[in-house]
Amino acid sequence: MKDKINKVVLAYSGGLDTSIIAKWLQEAYDCEVVTFTADIGQGEEVEPAREKAQAMGIREIYIEDLREEFARDYVYPMFRANAIYEGEYLLGTSIARPLIAKRLVEIAEETGADAIAHGATGKGNDQVRFELNAYALNPDIKVIAPWREWDLNSREKLMAYAETHGIPIENKKGKKSPYSMDANLLHISYEGGLLEDPWNEPEESMWRWTVSPEKAPNEPVYLELAYEKGDLVGINGERMTPAQVMETLNRIGGEHGIGRTDIVENRFVGMKSRGCYETPAGTIMLKAHRAIESITLDREAAHTKDELMPRYATLIYNGFWFAPEREMLQAAIDQTQQYVTGTVRVKLYKGNVIVVGRKSPYSLFDEKIATFEDDEGAYDQKDAEGFIKLNALRLKNLAKRQR
Amino acid sequence: MKDKINKVVLAYSGGLDTSIIAKWLQEAYDCEVVTFTADIGQGEEVEPAREKAQAMGIREIYIEDLREEFARDYVYPMFRANAIYEGEYLLGTSIARPLIAKRLVEIAEETGADAIAHGATGKGNDQVRFELNAYALNPDIKVIAPWREWDLNSREKLMAYAETHGIPIENKKGKKSPYSMDANLLHISYEGGLLEDPWNEPEESMWRWTVSPEKAPNEPVYLELAYEKGDLVGINGERMTPAQVMETLNRIGGEHGIGRTDIVENRFVGMKSRGCYETPAGTIMLKAHRAIESITLDREAAHTKDELMPRYATLIYNGFWFAPEREMLQAAIDQTQQYVTGTVRVKLYKGNVIVVGRKSPYSLFDEKIATFEDDEGAYDQKDAEGFIKLNALRLKNLAKRQR
Amino acid sequence: MKDKINKVVLAYSGGLDTSIIAKWLQEAYDCEVVTFTADIGQGEEVEPAREKAQAMGIREIYIEDLREEFARDYVYPMFRANAIYEGEYLLGTSIARPLIAKRLVEIAEETGADAIAHGATGKGNDQVRFELNAYALNPDIKVIAPWREWDLNSREKLMAYAETHGIPIENKKGKKSPYSMDANLLHISYEGGLLEDPWNEPEESMWRWTVSPEKAPNEPVYLELAYEKGDLVGINGERMTPAQVMETLNRIGGEHGIGRTDIVENRFVGMKSRGCYETPAGTIMLKAHRAIESITLDREAAHTKDELMPRYATLIYNGFWFAPEREMLQAAIDQTQQYVTGTVRVKLYKGNVIVVGRKSPYSLFDEKIATFEDDEGAYDQKDAEGFIKLNALRLKNLAKRQR
Amino acid sequence: MKDKINKVVLAYSGGLDTSIIAKWLQEAYDCEVVTFTADIGQGEEVEPAREKAQAMGIREIYIEDLREEFARDYVYPMFRANAIYEGEYLLGTSIARPLIAKRLVEIAEETGADAIAHGATGKGNDQVRFELNAYALNPDIKVIAPWREWDLNSREKLMAYAETHGIPIENKKGKKSPYSMDANLLHISYEGGLLEDPWNEPEESMWRWTVSPEKAPNEPVYLELAYEKGDLVGINGERMTPAQVMETLNRIGGEHGIGRTDIVENRFVGMKSRGCYETPAGTIMLKAHRAIESITLDREAAHTKDELMPRYATLIYNGFWFAPEREMLQAAIDQTQQYVTGTVRVKLYKGNVIVVGRKSPYSLFDEKIATFEDDEGAYDQKDAEGFIKLNALRLKNLAKRQR
Repeated sequence: MKDKINKVVLAYSGGLDTSIIAKWLQEAYDCEVVTFTADIGQGEEVEPAREKAQAMGIREIYIEDLREEFARDYVYPMFRANAIYEGEYLLGTSIARPLIAKRLVEIAEETGADAIAHGATGKGNDQVRFELNAYALNPDIKVIAPWREWDLNSREKLMAYAETHGIPIENKKGKKSPYSMDANLLHISYEGGLLEDPWNEPEESMWRWTVSPEKAPNEPVYLELAYEKGDLVGINGERMTPAQVMETLNRIGGEHGIGRTDIVENRFVGMKSRGCYETPAGTIMLKAHRAIESITLDREAAHTKDELMPRYATLIYNGFWFAPEREMLQAAIDQTQQYVTGTVRVKLYKGNVIVVGRKSPYSLFDEKIATFEDDEGAYDQKDAEGFIKLNALRLKNLAKRQR
Repeated sequence: MKDKINKVVLAYSGGLDTSIIAKWLQEAYDCEVVTFTADIGQGEEVEPAREKAQAMGIREIYIEDLREEFARDYVYPMFRANAIYEGEYLLGTSIARPLIAKRLVEIAEETGADAIAHGATGKGNDQVRFELNAYALNPDIKVIAPWREWDLNSREKLMAYAETHGIPIENKKGKKSPYSMDANLLHISYEGGLLEDPWNEPEESMWRWTVSPEKAPNEPVYLELAYEKGDLVGINGERMTPAQVMETLNRIGGEHGIGRTDIVENRFVGMKSRGCYETPAGTIMLKAHRAIESITLDREAAHTKDELMPRYATLIYNGFWFAPEREMLQAAIDQTQQYVTGTVRVKLYKGNVIVVGRKSPYSLFDEKIATFEDDEGAYDQKDAEGFIKLNALRLKNLAKRQR
Repeated sequence: MKDKINKVVLAYSGGLDTSIIAKWLQEAYDCEVVTFTADIGQGEEVEPAREKAQAMGIREIYIEDLREEFARDYVYPMFRANAIYEGEYLLGTSIARPLIAKRLVEIAEETGADAIAHGATGKGNDQVRFELNAYALNPDIKVIAPWREWDLNSREKLMAYAETHGIPIENKKGKKSPYSMDANLLHISYEGGLLEDPWNEPEESMWRWTVSPEKAPNEPVYLELAYEKGDLVGINGERMTPAQVMETLNRIGGEHGIGRTDIVENRFVGMKSRGCYETPAGTIMLKAHRAIESITLDREAAHTKDELMPRYATLIYNGFWFAPEREMLQAAIDQTQQYVTGTVRVKLYKGNVIVVGRKSPYSLFDEKIATFEDDEGAYDQKDAEGFIKLNALRLKNLAKRQR
Repeated sequence: MKDKINKVVLAYSGGLDTSIIAKWLQEAYDCEVVTFTADIGQGEEVEPAREKAQAMGIREIYIEDLREEFARDYVYPMFRANAIYEGEYLLGTSIARPLIAKRLVEIAEETGADAIAHGATGKGNDQVRFELNAYALNPDIKVIAPWREWDLNSREKLMAYAETHGIPIENKKGKKSPYSMDANLLHISYEGGLLEDPWNEPEESMWRWTVSPEKAPNEPVYLELAYEKGDLVGINGERMTPAQVMETLNRIGGEHGIGRTDIVENRFVGMKSRGCYETPAGTIMLKAHRAIESITLDREAAHTKDELMPRYATLIYNGFWFAPEREMLQAAIDQTQQYVTGTVRVKLYKGNVIVVGRKSPYSLFDEKIATFEDDEGAYDQKDAEGFIKLNALRLKNLAKRQR
């Protein structure tokens, strides 16, 4: 028995699958469908979604450019934390879902819809991320996840449904990717196909945003990245918005073979899965942010951040962006970024991001103390003896007992 | 007033500085000096230290090859933890100190010495690492740190002392490095000189173990790395000891420009310092170990390891190897490695370590569940709804309150 | 559609609810039922369950005394961790479930059953604990949770079912508790009834194991508790088994009004619930274990334990006893207990557990150093200056920047 | 060689020891001394310090009532964290030191002094707390710790010095406590004397602020404690300032035998020490704050707080109040307290603090969901199956491998 639904807001890409969902929602729930299509930097036109939606009789169509909001309010705060999931994954898909969920819920409230719908399957993380974030923003919203409900559980059934219902199947001959992909300003991801055996090396033809290190230029490029309070605000002397920064670094990074990752990761729903990612801007940003922190952040603040980071990253991965535990960790992280201001110089070369310089008006690096040369009394080496002696006291005591 | 010392065991490299220390100890403490020189893979002959020591009248001279012990009992356990300090540093110097401290203490006990001595300065981490680990093993041992005591606090005074006392100053014309260096099987490090300004890019001529990515071969090399219970035990089908593994990977990695790091780090004694490191084998081992764990380690065990890791790394960095808190974390880490067995395939190319395959007889990666294709009931997508609903319950409750 | 089940092992208390379940399983699944009844110290006879089961036609009946196994292999390891959930709850119910799950699975394997069943509701933690632990031990076992399946969702329907099916409803006139209770060697718990309003104070008549502090004797009792490697092995000079220790402390503690707790806790399934608990032995054991650790455990080992504890407690609360992350934390905890040996003296008085003395052959408390009197050089106060100076170095550096 | 000091601000209690220090500073450093005496609730008159200082020729005398500032800006933020050191200690001394250090530094700046001085010994935590916090506020301040410098290292020498220098030794015959004590609004502490053997039970005569549970009234008292955003703002309907709250609870708690603690703790300088504490208000506040959080704080926020707490407590214990890592944790903690508003009802009886009720306009406790009775669909028990199944997925996978 399905719930009675009057109107549903669908996260609509304009592609075949979400077009089938739009039609199926109309049929299965006998309800009105509102489509929502967002440009979050996936690199495809969003405007064509309008016509397709209209063709299916959709009357309320939302098409929005969310690139700046995405970069500024989601990606940037996350990079203040140096977030990385399981040592490798920069959370490209994870961080986009809360924003989509937020807009779905807001549009539902604007249009008087009682439900939202998405095209994520019942096996993945994205369903969880959409739904947890939506429920956190509107506890009464209903969520329809057609992939968990319908019986269109094979490619053939989907195609048959499309044909029966007059949904055009675009004939991109020879171009249909064997991979399941997702893209936004932060990354493009690949799953499925031959990646399902983790012993297989990805085909070179799979990658779309970066050249291989082998094909990258023989000359490196140097960039100067300007930071203010933990955020990257300019490149080579030019001030930029967050989305501009990311588009610029994606382009340059992609040209230099930066940001490919190939991992087996642990999903929140319990299984392991293979994923490949291209994250050019993010890969540069992580390195550079750590570098500017290395001269401006206190040691213990930095270490505390490092210890909290895996949990923070897992929260985002699992879909808990709009959750109080993420917010409290964010408060701690943001609190540390007040002086994380300065410039990092990086060299990009055939897949490598090499930090070659960092400077800051707020640098805590004190050459006078650090020097191997005479420091003229800035540091009294004799202090070290007491420091060591008292740190050793409990260890000596233990050693005496063991005798 | 100095303590009365009868005999002291000195960590002796055979170089100028520790030769001066040997002489100074004899003079300042009027005591017998025992020298201890170890091969821990620094890539220099240790046998010449014998003759130099004899020339200074040393009668008890210990020269030992500790490469296997170092790799097996120190480096390998640390790599089970994926240890990395401040997101970048593979702890190459830190992990060698406990072993040196242990042998110094043991030799002191064998030779009836009442003290040990080392050549680390009063500004660095190494004094702390030597001394904490020594005290943890023998609470009654005395430690002499000449750099904290004497007044030979400039290059000129040292040279004058050497000349006065007949210590030969080798005339490696034009070869004297401007950097303070330290090397062992895991890495070679550089500090000082132009690195003291963190905005300066290191000169290419500084690096000794690796070619630059630019100079590395245009053809990648592929390696198959065999793991057993978390440890790397073979390369390309050939079984190797830990030290052999590391020597092999250092050589191949070095040829492909792998493992350079350039960072500003936070010392335990309180200041920031710039360090450059070459860690070819370690860089490959970290990537590969994470890859074999990615298919053989449970998600929550992996996440718990990730959350404990920064603390574990800091303990080693700070000199707490022989401390109970390191040992309890090691117990937790080792407990997880029972099934971390299998093979990782990596590609090395111009500075990049790229994991391209992983397989294991104990793999937890289940293609039948992970597949995007029909899984024949291995996973019931409807379970996801309940999973999400209960995970959302508290978030909904919060959202209701905020209204 | 129900799965086809041939034989199911039921966690059977002998009470009305699980008797109804036994009958319902026979009917609803047309399968054979094996009953399993365990004495884990709940304080009720288990033998009467045999006759009741026989009366329902059950042929395979398991009745076991698991008190020692429960105390030794579950409660004791947990107390090594000083585990406490949300600052208050000693995990009395949580820690019993893994053992029950383990025996259910083992009996299923012995009797050729393909499923297990339990009487926990769909709202609580216990269903999760039974099922996660069962699945962790046998991935193919099926679990039947009648409360989540049937439509007997009110007291009336249950009674009607019992009557129709000839299940005797014991007529404990006036004795039917309004509370949902659970008991074992570690505690007895109360939920429901007037507790459902967290502003209500529990009625005095609710509590069963302890007298109120008001009614406790006016004279305190002193106990000497002997510890070996973290475990309590004797009381007042008499060596005891774990179960004997707990029974003794429950009796004496109960007489002195020890161990009542009244809290609102957060369930794993997402809601808050009110629970009252009586845990006399556990309350004493927690205090005493901390006390013996206070003189025998190293500071940093103790602090690391304290930081890991909340997670460890949550794992047990949530049902992850037989999970690798609990096992790795246990390895760390157990590793620290080698010298946690000695004697603690406690005073029990009207609800108070007061530690009044601790001693150990392995004590790290060093009167010679700690003394306010002259320590004859055991500690050099001048060491403190260097210790403070180097700990302050980064703070001074920060302060300079802020100026 | 002593530094040249022109003027020093001394933390001056008016007692014998700090009077000797005042005199000694004048002599040893030939410098001007400014005295600073604060009322932080220690329960002794501070005004008499004026006359004593004047008698020694002190011209700049600061006497201040800091009780409200202490309670509001130090104690209250700490209690938001439920801070407790090593499971037992409520940090009464630790939390007062940063405020004293802050005023010393400020007065030094006001009076043009170049140094501060305190009367803490070289063995304890307080020297560290004074000095780290002072350096964190003024990196150029000098600190004089006479106990680490002078040779007045026995009671006899001190008395002789006092006599020689005309410092009056008050003749409180028979009243000289054998204990080293420290008191403020939060607690009074005892160290030394017979406590130096941790097997000794404290004498009843030692305790000053509380009656023993045995001597407490036979009738309990009930209190209603009003919380706003995590802070206790009223008692029994009467709004109070933080200091008033603490004075009231100290008085009532003390009458009912609340808040005695007797522990062996680990000092930052490396040794274990025995301490006894009376903390009546704090003991009530910790219990009550946890209780109001139990109904108003989200589960994961609460658990994250619990996991961060031991580190937070250790930071305060060790003297890192004005350190960035404490501040970042405080930001996280404070972020969670927005809705921690409501009323807690406690019963005090002979040493017991018993929470008997909690209510809040922002309660997250939902009787409709939590009830054991029919919840009319507020919670769908079938959701639990999917929740458990997906939580079990990885555990099943592990179990399959082990077979």
